[in-house]
Amino acid sequence: MSSQAPHNTLLIPGPIEFDDAVLQSMSHYAEVLSESHVGPAFVKTFGETLTLLRKLFQTTSPTAQPFVISGSGTLGWDIVASNLIERGEDALVLHTGYFGDSFAAALETYGVRATQLKAPIGERPSLAEIEEALKQKPYKIITITHVDTSTGVLSDIKAIAELVRRVSPDTLVVVDGVCSVGCEEIAFDAWDLDVVLTASQKAIGCPPGLSILMLSGRALDRFKSRKTPPASYYASIANWLPIMQNYEAGKPSYFATPPTQLIHALHTSLTKITSRPLAERFAIHAKTSDKVKAAVAELGLTQLATKPENQSHAMTAIRLPQGMTAPDILPALLKRGVVFAAGLHKEIAPLYIRFGHMGVSVTEPGRNDIDKAIAALKEAYAEVKQAKGL
Amino acid sequence: MSSQAPHNTLLIPGPIEFDDAVLQSMSHYAEVLSESHVGPAFVKTFGETLTLLRKLFQTTSPTAQPFVISGSGTLGWDIVASNLIERGEDALVLHTGYFGDSFAAALETYGVRATQLKAPIGERPSLAEIEEALKQKPYKIITITHVDTSTGVLSDIKAIAELVRRVSPDTLVVVDGVCSVGCEEIAFDAWDLDVVLTASQKAIGCPPGLSILMLSGRALDRFKSRKTPPASYYASIANWLPIMQNYEAGKPSYFATPPTQLIHALHTSLTKITSRPLAERFAIHAKTSDKVKAAVAELGLTQLATKPENQSHAMTAIRLPQGMTAPDILPALLKRGVVFAAGLHKEIAPLYIRFGHMGVSVTEPGRNDIDKAIAALKEAYAEVKQAKGL
Repeated sequence: MSSQAPHNTLLIPGPIEFDDAVLQSMSHYAEVLSESHVGPAFVKTFGETLTLLRKLFQTTSPTAQPFVISGSGTLGWDIVASNLIERGEDALVLHTGYFGDSFAAALETYGVRATQLKAPIGERPSLAEIEEALKQKPYKIITITHVDTSTGVLSDIKAIAELVRRVSPDTLVVVDGVCSVGCEEIAFDAWDLDVVLTASQKAIGCPPGLSILMLSGRALDRFKSRKTPPASYYASIANWLPIMQNYEAGKPSYFATPPTQLIHALHTSLTKITSRPLAERFAIHAKTSDKVKAAVAELGLTQLATKPENQSHAMTAIRLPQGMTAPDILPALLKRGVVFAAGLHKEIAPLYIRFGHMGVSVTEPGRNDIDKAIAALKEAYAEVKQAKGL
Repeated sequence: MSSQAPHNTLLIPGPIEFDDAVLQSMSHYAEVLSESHVGPAFVKTFGETLTLLRKLFQTTSPTAQPFVISGSGTLGWDIVASNLIERGEDALVLHTGYFGDSFAAALETYGVRATQLKAPIGERPSLAEIEEALKQKPYKIITITHVDTSTGVLSDIKAIAELVRRVSPDTLVVVDGVCSVGCEEIAFDAWDLDVVLTASQKAIGCPPGLSILMLSGRALDRFKSRKTPPASYYASIANWLPIMQNYEAGKPSYFATPPTQLIHALHTSLTKITSRPLAERFAIHAKTSDKVKAAVAELGLTQLATKPENQSHAMTAIRLPQGMTAPDILPALLKRGVVFAAGLHKEIAPLYIRFGHMGVSVTEPGRNDIDKAIAALKEAYAEVKQAKGL
């Protein structure tokens, strides 16, 4: 069976549909069959991958440092929590859904005092609320979920970073970009961010299994001035920093065996993404998102994120009407060859569904994935409404 | 280019040569193209993979628990250090090379007091020395590197486990099986082991990127009786245990996105490995190792592990004669299409080379990988000896 075989269209908020070339780069070429993780061919691939990440994050700062580590996106929280802040110090966690709670839990595991600034479901803390919170304590870091995958809420990281620099300039700005890097605009240098952490399987369009981070020089300085050693071994920047610096400089280096096949896939994906202007990529994601959201509104349905400025361009969290749950409509969508995700926010999980629109499904309109999914949504919704007598 | 393209033969102590079917399972089939990590197809694959691991570890104990987590083998040390022992408690680390030092460093990161019992390079601590050490302190865990990849030293984990049960029955027996699982015999139940941790890319023959563990009921009880919460978030058994139990029971579950493609590769590899008697697999690895070691002796070369009972069947660490270093002979081997690894033990790294003999290179004699490598070693050694005037 070839990768061209018909299959259901995966439109969950990650993992997403893959470009054939990305998957094939893990199995089809001689190098992946015969490659030492410290041999010159892989050193070159890994080094180039790190350099391509600088392009994706729009950074040219020589002190910024990319990391690619075997693990899921979640590992990025441990890297932040065990290296950039110490036991007993304060972190301000902006909460726009499930992933705020989890990031806070990760910070607390390492003895950090995490204060959550929560908004109602579908909302985000206002700049005024954030400013007030920042004035209460000397927070070492502020964490922001760029797009919370559980709610589809988008945060305005540019405005928040500006605010932090103005009222609490020593606070590191940490962005959880798991569901945003590769589809929402991120200008690492221009917006003066300190950490963006992400994963491979969402808008980057690569199989899951890579924890990806960009750290600013300010973040590395904070790490270097720790009073105590890093609080994790596998997630220790002390262990990984020389490895990343060496590979990018073309020198093999060993701390733990890198996931060579996944890094080939990431190299292929990043090469493709950065071969076109990033502005174009962000624009087509915004335009596609508008189209999806218009179709949802046309059906008389609402989103978890009610205000347009709170709505991510990566996904749409669609609230179901009274009397209909995710287990009612997801099978009706699957019957039409479309895979959406159920809700994830603990309080209301069965009451909504999530439609991911990232990566090749968006950038290659010839695939027709989005139109097919919109049509399937219309049909499935009508079918379930009728069956339920709604 | 197809995966049949000619390529150098990778005979380092991991990653190893791949079976075509293993690599292709990451890219060739419809399911990997359209698969949600919580959809029924992947739930089935992941659940079966966990069950296949029970077969590989020869355990039928209902209280034993397999784990497969996105990360390198190194992550297994954090899982042990942050869950099965607490700050201020004692661990006895048997040192047979580089990986003993690293495991001790991982334990110390989490506040554990690690006492290393060291042997000279190429040796291993004797049972009498281990018994004496166990009587000094109430060690919560003892860690043993089954095969230390830096030296090729094999530990007798069966005898050590017996000893521990006799003289210090509450001490958990923790085996680092990164370079042994899949080629050295491990009988988890019969030998009464508590933890075996490993990685995907050595004798299991899967791409790197999976941290794999088997825990005994006794180890899980130790975890459940902790006085303090787990000391890591990403490596927390509290976070992963329900996920593994749910997937094996056929239920989707979410903590962090699993590396779906790599788990497909692992499923393919484990299906193949467990389709034949394991005893046969261990025997062919032993026989092949004997052949390699005989060829090394025939050349007048010695191993780092001098005593036959200390020598692993996964790899051979070959000491080079005075006047010859790894950078002299590795290119002469590569010219003949064979990739060996340089030394890794800090004190003597350039003075030896490592020949890995695991997986399909061993179990499929039709590939001729081992004979090719032995012939290449003979020629390369003669060539460098002559060039150096030795």
